[in-house]
Amino acid sequence: VLNLVIAESALERVPASIQRHPSVVKHAQRVGKRPDQLLLDRTYHHAAMIELDRAERRGRPDIIHMSLLAALGTPLNKEGLLRVFVHTIENKVINVNPETRLPKNYNRFVRLIEQLYEDGKVPREGPTLLSLEDKNLKGLMQDIGSPFVVALTRIGKPSTLLEVAGSLTKCDKPTVMVGGFPRGHFEKEIIDEASQVISIDPETLDTWIVVSRVLYEYEKTIGLTEKRLKKIFKGEVKDI
Amino acid sequence: VLNLVIAESALERVPASIQRHPSVVKHAQRVGKRPDQLLLDRTYHHAAMIELDRAERRGRPDIIHMSLLAALGTPLNKEGLLRVFVHTIENKVINVNPETRLPKNYNRFVRLIEQLYEDGKVPREGPTLLSLEDKNLKGLMQDIGSPFVVALTRIGKPSTLLEVAGSLTKCDKPTVMVGGFPRGHFEKEIIDEASQVISIDPETLDTWIVVSRVLYEYEKTIGLTEKRLKKIFKGEVKDI
Repeated sequence: VLNLVIAESALERVPASIQRHPSVVKHAQRVGKRPDQLLLDRTYHHAAMIELDRAERRGRPDIIHMSLLAALGTPLNKEGLLRVFVHTIENKVINVNPETRLPKNYNRFVRLIEQLYEDGKVPREGPTLLSLEDKNLKGLMQDIGSPFVVALTRIGKPSTLLEVAGSLTKCDKPTVMVGGFPRGHFEKEIIDEASQVISIDPETLDTWIVVSRVLYEYEKTIGLTEKRLKKIFKGEVKDI
Repeated sequence: VLNLVIAESALERVPASIQRHPSVVKHAQRVGKRPDQLLLDRTYHHAAMIELDRAERRGRPDIIHMSLLAALGTPLNKEGLLRVFVHTIENKVINVNPETRLPKNYNRFVRLIEQLYEDGKVPREGPTLLSLEDKNLKGLMQDIGSPFVVALTRIGKPSTLLEVAGSLTKCDKPTVMVGGFPRGHFEKEIIDEASQVISIDPETLDTWIVVSRVLYEYEKTIGLTEKRLKKIFKGEVKDI
């Protein structure tokens, strides 16, 4: 099983310091929530975010939405061979049940994550799909107990994903870590958790693009792509 | 240059027959538009869509949004080696300028596409980023003039993307075609345009996942991944 950690993700609720800003109040009224219940979102809170520290790394739930959709739809996940964790900039961790069928619509995704921040898990009844806890990356890594952790970032040792996938498959429970923020680099305490720090391209690539590529390359390396194609030949596929 | 055609895409404005449906009228009021100016969207118009033909294949702008983001952010596109076309279920074609920085926020994307349907191009001034014209897939294929067209669909000859990429690189101006709809298969007139019809997995994969994989495999086959990594070694990257 491969662990995917989307680290330092630009996901949080609107912080107290800007909850009275007109752009936040107006947005809260429009969606019928209190300002403190809203996810911080640059699209709506841009004007208010100017007052925030490290604002350029915050308020991008869309990055998490697209990256999760890129991960959960892979054959790797359909086969139960992937575990996904979202670590956030304020040291919370979302544990994603592999069975989760995430809303494809962005607004529904945001409402779901707001509910998760409210209740600590979703849905309210039945098996938990997403759960939220206070945890820093070090704590998450201790829980995962992975002997080998590759962090992908533009500042790293240049390497192809083929090589990365090869080294990930050499141990049990490997972990690959990708930044869940729009620009900049991992903080030092994140890098400290990595066995290897790798750069796969000279330019910063969108998180969901890196996620797609590393999962695909890992699938190929463990032979999953070929194995699944053989199912077609063997006639094991029912609904063609 | 590789051509990517997202075909039979579930993208259109709300059709006349359901413009008076309460769910459409309410949505139009909320966003301050006329019903005929809105993109059809299952998230908001589900109740109204029951009355539509082939409803299960319509009203999914989110699929196009995510697939375009998966394509435009690739190194292949950054190098100017990709052309993207969105063919829609009602035979319109969106020509995407490779320089386009698409809104990452879904609601902004929808407003942009609505403006595109209104004006025929966006933005109103300056170089055109997206343009829209009436054209069926056959017409688009004549314009592209591609000698080799691979259609990816679950009903096809089983093959790995490595093999697909290998055959795409054997000619100038190859085209890969992926379905821009949530389920079902290409119509016959779409399949008629393909040189090869290939299945890469026994299950239907999300459009953006197929797009990510085929573009990445193509990049690797033409040696772009390695070539870009060498830039890091050569110190040609300025802002590391």
